[in-house]
Amino acid sequence: MPSAPNLQEAVAEIAAEMRDRPDRGDVATYIPELAKIDPARFGLCVVDTTGAVAAAGDAEEPFSIQSISKVFTLTLALGMSGDRLWSRVGREPSGSAFNSIVQLEHERGVPRNPFINAGAIAVTDVILSGHQPREALGEILRFVRFVSDDESITIDKAVAASEQRTGFRNAALANYMKSFGVLQNPVDYTLGVYFHHCAIAMSCRQLAMAGRFLAHEGRSPTTGLSVVSPQRARRINAIMLTCGHYDGSGEFAYRVGLPGKSGVGGGILAIAPGKASIAVWSPGLDAAGNSHLGRIALEKLSRRMGWSIFG
Amino acid sequence: MPSAPNLQEAVAEIAAEMRDRPDRGDVATYIPELAKIDPARFGLCVVDTTGAVAAAGDAEEPFSIQSISKVFTLTLALGMSGDRLWSRVGREPSGSAFNSIVQLEHERGVPRNPFINAGAIAVTDVILSGHQPREALGEILRFVRFVSDDESITIDKAVAASEQRTGFRNAALANYMKSFGVLQNPVDYTLGVYFHHCAIAMSCRQLAMAGRFLAHEGRSPTTGLSVVSPQRARRINAIMLTCGHYDGSGEFAYRVGLPGKSGVGGGILAIAPGKASIAVWSPGLDAAGNSHLGRIALEKLSRRMGWSIFG
Amino acid sequence: MPSAPNLQEAVAEIAAEMRDRPDRGDVATYIPELAKIDPARFGLCVVDTTGAVAAAGDAEEPFSIQSISKVFTLTLALGMSGDRLWSRVGREPSGSAFNSIVQLEHERGVPRNPFINAGAIAVTDVILSGHQPREALGEILRFVRFVSDDESITIDKAVAASEQRTGFRNAALANYMKSFGVLQNPVDYTLGVYFHHCAIAMSCRQLAMAGRFLAHEGRSPTTGLSVVSPQRARRINAIMLTCGHYDGSGEFAYRVGLPGKSGVGGGILAIAPGKASIAVWSPGLDAAGNSHLGRIALEKLSRRMGWSIFG
Amino acid sequence: MPSAPNLQEAVAEIAAEMRDRPDRGDVATYIPELAKIDPARFGLCVVDTTGAVAAAGDAEEPFSIQSISKVFTLTLALGMSGDRLWSRVGREPSGSAFNSIVQLEHERGVPRNPFINAGAIAVTDVILSGHQPREALGEILRFVRFVSDDESITIDKAVAASEQRTGFRNAALANYMKSFGVLQNPVDYTLGVYFHHCAIAMSCRQLAMAGRFLAHEGRSPTTGLSVVSPQRARRINAIMLTCGHYDGSGEFAYRVGLPGKSGVGGGILAIAPGKASIAVWSPGLDAAGNSHLGRIALEKLSRRMGWSIFG
Repeated sequence: MPSAPNLQEAVAEIAAEMRDRPDRGDVATYIPELAKIDPARFGLCVVDTTGAVAAAGDAEEPFSIQSISKVFTLTLALGMSGDRLWSRVGREPSGSAFNSIVQLEHERGVPRNPFINAGAIAVTDVILSGHQPREALGEILRFVRFVSDDESITIDKAVAASEQRTGFRNAALANYMKSFGVLQNPVDYTLGVYFHHCAIAMSCRQLAMAGRFLAHEGRSPTTGLSVVSPQRARRINAIMLTCGHYDGSGEFAYRVGLPGKSGVGGGILAIAPGKASIAVWSPGLDAAGNSHLGRIALEKLSRRMGWSIFG
Repeated sequence: MPSAPNLQEAVAEIAAEMRDRPDRGDVATYIPELAKIDPARFGLCVVDTTGAVAAAGDAEEPFSIQSISKVFTLTLALGMSGDRLWSRVGREPSGSAFNSIVQLEHERGVPRNPFINAGAIAVTDVILSGHQPREALGEILRFVRFVSDDESITIDKAVAASEQRTGFRNAALANYMKSFGVLQNPVDYTLGVYFHHCAIAMSCRQLAMAGRFLAHEGRSPTTGLSVVSPQRARRINAIMLTCGHYDGSGEFAYRVGLPGKSGVGGGILAIAPGKASIAVWSPGLDAAGNSHLGRIALEKLSRRMGWSIFG
Repeated sequence: MPSAPNLQEAVAEIAAEMRDRPDRGDVATYIPELAKIDPARFGLCVVDTTGAVAAAGDAEEPFSIQSISKVFTLTLALGMSGDRLWSRVGREPSGSAFNSIVQLEHERGVPRNPFINAGAIAVTDVILSGHQPREALGEILRFVRFVSDDESITIDKAVAASEQRTGFRNAALANYMKSFGVLQNPVDYTLGVYFHHCAIAMSCRQLAMAGRFLAHEGRSPTTGLSVVSPQRARRINAIMLTCGHYDGSGEFAYRVGLPGKSGVGGGILAIAPGKASIAVWSPGLDAAGNSHLGRIALEKLSRRMGWSIFG
Repeated sequence: MPSAPNLQEAVAEIAAEMRDRPDRGDVATYIPELAKIDPARFGLCVVDTTGAVAAAGDAEEPFSIQSISKVFTLTLALGMSGDRLWSRVGREPSGSAFNSIVQLEHERGVPRNPFINAGAIAVTDVILSGHQPREALGEILRFVRFVSDDESITIDKAVAASEQRTGFRNAALANYMKSFGVLQNPVDYTLGVYFHHCAIAMSCRQLAMAGRFLAHEGRSPTTGLSVVSPQRARRINAIMLTCGHYDGSGEFAYRVGLPGKSGVGGGILAIAPGKASIAVWSPGLDAAGNSHLGRIALEKLSRRMGWSIFG
């Protein structure tokens, strides 16, 4: 394992290099709250398994984690329903865009994996089961606070409200799954919880802290308590690797070589198993909807630290 | 790293367990040469990076490696044309069956990755470039013999001839790509080489030997010579992980946690980076076209040895 | 043109033959109100351009016209917005099921024609434009009463309420189009009007009366007043011919040779231009969702009367 | 029925108008033989059921009929195998481009209708059955000469050879169907006959003569002999209406209101049942691959003569 000083140096140098790059991708514009984010922001934070933290840039500034929340809802739903979850969602890469509905028609309403929008809505429906939306959302937030060991994490209600007003494509996905019986709660309930957990705001530091259990065989390195079994941690990492970047998942595996999950807010959570939990934030996105500089920074970090899981 | 005795024990026990299982999947029947293989056969061979070999069952019996050859042709083509290869084939999971043509229409004839049939045909076309089929095939065979350090490996001509007679779906894929200019050689030439390299016959031992460079940062552990750069070895492993089992790639990553490539002959080559190269053979296939018991054996081995790349 | 007595005879004989056939298709079951309809019901009514009426069987019994209402909403929307309508909906056969969403993704939310569900929802949205749902619905109902010259026609509110409760697939289509800006009103408004106009209940006699303007160059034969121009009547007939039976439109044209529109309530409105307006009702559906015996009855009638538009 | 003088006047005026229009579409460029055709050419010929001929422009100049040949091969194949033909090809509009392969994958290799490329290849395979390509081709040519009452019609061998050299997309379709058992002859045989019958060269006059049996209840108006039964003539017309212009079939029905079949050579054969057989030629194509001015000329002619089948 690399020594902490090297890591701190790598993080600082990569952040500095990213700050100056002119190619920054395009900030998501579908809701005003995301569109107004300054594309110049860049944050990077790494927590190794000893708990040492290396951070640079805007690593303390909260941003909308968006689809990164799907890692936490998947973990929570597996905790609640175990392998029964897999009757409602698959675990294969989708081969299409994050919000595609074509696959649902060809596979009778069962989404391909928990990290495309449809799959994450189905996972949210599992969490919701038998509860009021407020309770389900509380449970998700409590879980995120627990794994990140930070009670200050909140939901950005303006973002959630804006998504709810404009999220017609997600409403299409939800209604479509409902028509096949894949959702069991009222569509509005499930969508409400979904839009709100996507609107959780976290900083790179908070996010890197929250990912530690995945880098650490399922245990909280702080308390030593088990969040999930080692096998489940491995399996969540596997799904992040194959499905975590929509139709750019192959590219991320090829270039970065780490399990990761991106969000349209420009964040990426990446896991170097046994070594570190990493969060990066750069609001500009590439064509596949993943953070452009975020991916490049992780590629540089992974190579420099020798963290690729592929050898 | 596990000690060699433990590995030998694990290999023997898993092979014994597999030999007795009643669920064996269905042997591929599309050509007589594959259909007549006894579904009771089972072989397993592991070569660790020290060169120690653990083998059990029918590990010395040659079988048709079929799509596993795509790992070797990809490696060879990258050596010949470098990153220019990626203008002719993508590196994203396909989200559809191994022989699907739908994706080609939606993406103007460029196959999604080098491990689905269309992609492997495009890779073969790159290798063929400017040569006669016989020469290209010779080059492929020489490369396979070189990485496996075994001059006795040959092509099963009956299998190749049979595929050539019946491979209409592959002919459709090739002609379709040709219509978009993705293939540059005569379709018959490219298909001829493709059918022949899929008909290479290897034993588990030969295959495990051939995979060592991928487990060993691109170098031959025997000679220490570089086959590919460490980065390229990692990247080939990454593509194997995300795309190596067709529409069962997510499942293989989830259960086994190793880069791997399957063939309809029932073989799988799996790589535990820095640890071992593994070959398994069981002719019965699952619904996605991958060896049923082969995958189960690898899942058991990976768990027992703690080899998952996901933590 | 055949004389009226022959027509009456043909209608009576065909209805008698249909009443006895054992093959009746399957009644739509997705809402209880449709599922409980007796599959033995059969009605047939023909109004020729002189106003002579030939009826047999349950021709006076109202049934849920369902998608046949799309003929009337298309006519109304064309009257309101003219050719601007065609920026929101195409006029090509869909090549897929009545409720497919795949095509919408491939064509940026613009439905292929006004007679598949998505297209009819878009047409409803055009009618709704700037009005309250109640007003729009009133306008549709007034139009249907006007063309059928029958003030007694009403909406079956139990059917409408049931569809609204269970219409998730239509909600998916509507939200999907909304996400592309193809719908301009609140999704709930548009869907509400859509579900209600599909729930209009009419008898074969009322429906045949309502279709006269399409058989009569756009004019009401009763009053001589123009409903639409002759060209528009021809064009609506053309769309009925190519798109009126979902993915069974080619079959209907091939066998019956008349423009027609079916509904899952088991009704079909068919037009013999210059000759007659025809309504048939048999609740059992074929695999494409069209009335099984309805189509057969029309095939027999068309052949016997020499009404095919194809020679 | 309009009097002959009026028809002659209409034909002359429409041809004159078309000659001067600047919007002419784009000439097909995929083979040199088509690309070099002068886009200024325009021919129009109408034969009414009395045998009277009205012609204007380049009506005597032979052009490559391309897909219009599919009308004759369908007729011939139905004569040879009757309704058994329909186990190998459907009769529904395709909802996609003329050379799409996507539908074949979704429907197990059975093409949607005899007028898209895949369907016409399947029909050619039926004609070929048990014969040498040369014989099958001779039979097709004899049939075309018979229905057009013109022994001078020939195949343009340069066009056929060029298509054979470059027809990779059609080779993909053929191999794909072969893989599902939909084709029964060697792929090369079937494709050879297909490319050659598409290369038949006819003038507008010859083509209009050849279509007379479809306008005349299946009989040759010259000899009174039956070519097909009245019902079969109607049914072929129905398929032309719903499927004759690829993904522009709805548009053609909407605007022209006549059964018709287009070819990428710029020709269209249209049938006014009971009234006339019409051929038009203008080499420039629209986005759907149909003659741009050909369609406009037919729309004008149909409206002026009151020939729409829709009222």
